[in-house]
Amino acid sequence: MPAHYLRESDKLKKQILTLCAIVEENVQRAVMSIEKRDEDLAKKVISGDQEIDKREIEVEEECLKILALYQPVATDLRFIVAVMKMNNDLERIGDLAVNIAERSIFLSTQNKIDLLLDFPQMVEKTRTMLKNCLDALINMDARLAYSVLAADNEVDKLNGEMYDIVEKEIKKAPERIKVLINLLSASRHLERIADHATNIAEDVIYLIEGRIVRHKTEEFEEKRHSN
Amino acid sequence: MPAHYLRESDKLKKQILTLCAIVEENVQRAVMSIEKRDEDLAKKVISGDQEIDKREIEVEEECLKILALYQPVATDLRFIVAVMKMNNDLERIGDLAVNIAERSIFLSTQNKIDLLLDFPQMVEKTRTMLKNCLDALINMDARLAYSVLAADNEVDKLNGEMYDIVEKEIKKAPERIKVLINLLSASRHLERIADHATNIAEDVIYLIEGRIVRHKTEEFEEKRHSN
Repeated sequence: MPAHYLRESDKLKKQILTLCAIVEENVQRAVMSIEKRDEDLAKKVISGDQEIDKREIEVEEECLKILALYQPVATDLRFIVAVMKMNNDLERIGDLAVNIAERSIFLSTQNKIDLLLDFPQMVEKTRTMLKNCLDALINMDARLAYSVLAADNEVDKLNGEMYDIVEKEIKKAPERIKVLINLLSASRHLERIADHATNIAEDVIYLIEGRIVRHKTEEFEEKRHSN
Repeated sequence: MPAHYLRESDKLKKQILTLCAIVEENVQRAVMSIEKRDEDLAKKVISGDQEIDKREIEVEEECLKILALYQPVATDLRFIVAVMKMNNDLERIGDLAVNIAERSIFLSTQNKIDLLLDFPQMVEKTRTMLKNCLDALINMDARLAYSVLAADNEVDKLNGEMYDIVEKEIKKAPERIKVLINLLSASRHLERIADHATNIAEDVIYLIEGRIVRHKTEEFEEKRHSN
């Protein structure tokens, strides 16, 4: 590939990493706004989403430009396609951060509720998944990407537990249903963020190994244990 | 473009249309299984998802093959990229049909609940959105694609109303919470299906008009009224 191509693909790599960092920060702020009952922080998450949307379009346009101008094949083609898909997932993670922030604005107006659920643990696991799929991309580390796939099951489990706890609490105090359902929504949004991080990890694996691993859970597991 | 390319892109078009038809049918079955409390039908939806996953991978591989072999540019490149994105959305719609079927299996074991909500209307609107984005693709009809964007707001509104009704019902009968929350989940999954149909419509518009319309709601509205 010519030097021009290398410059363009380098630029694209920087763009997607910057987008990833901005999205990660917005997720972190959204979650923190719930923990700290901070309405202003939640509003920042919502207004910050415009920047994410703008950058998503820029990344897509850059991908199309590279495809049209340099007509990459093999690994280079896979890289562009993987970036296009990650870009899509990152934008949706951004939307989910906005959804969490919306729940947070409602929750900040209500009395604090103490549940026995492990919301901070779920937050932490999701955040780690996001960070790891970014690092897996930067370092082309398939092993780290496989670890993201494994972590998704744990987040799903925590979300299921959250549901059980909320159900019990609503039975005990039906008048608190609005707060409880808003908390459950936030948990579900986090779980979907973890799903998108899993998609990104799958794209990284595809990029490195050239094989499509989604829909093949058993194979993931084998691979993970053998790594 | 050479005759080979036309054959390949024709094959790809057929593949994506077939996938769309299968996904549409699975959504329809999932919803019908709730209405008819038909556990067997719900199980068919779940087992049918393997076929969708398989076809999604085939479409993606066909896209990559075309990109690598024919290095299309301009409209041809946009077509391949749009198909790749639609393919992704269709696969996720398939997953949501499975989620609805899972709710349905639980609901079929419970006493029927009659709510004042307009679930059938929501189902019908979502189904129309799915059908219209497929037709918009076949006939390259941007106007129809814009109508899908407009319909999404209505589905969002119906989902919001569903939430209010469920909240009231839970307050009245907290012991029915499990059934009610399962119904609410089904409604939310439908709303997400409508979101994916919207994404597909945006891809069709991108394909026809060569411009990215997402994140530009006001512009959609102007365009819709001027069409």
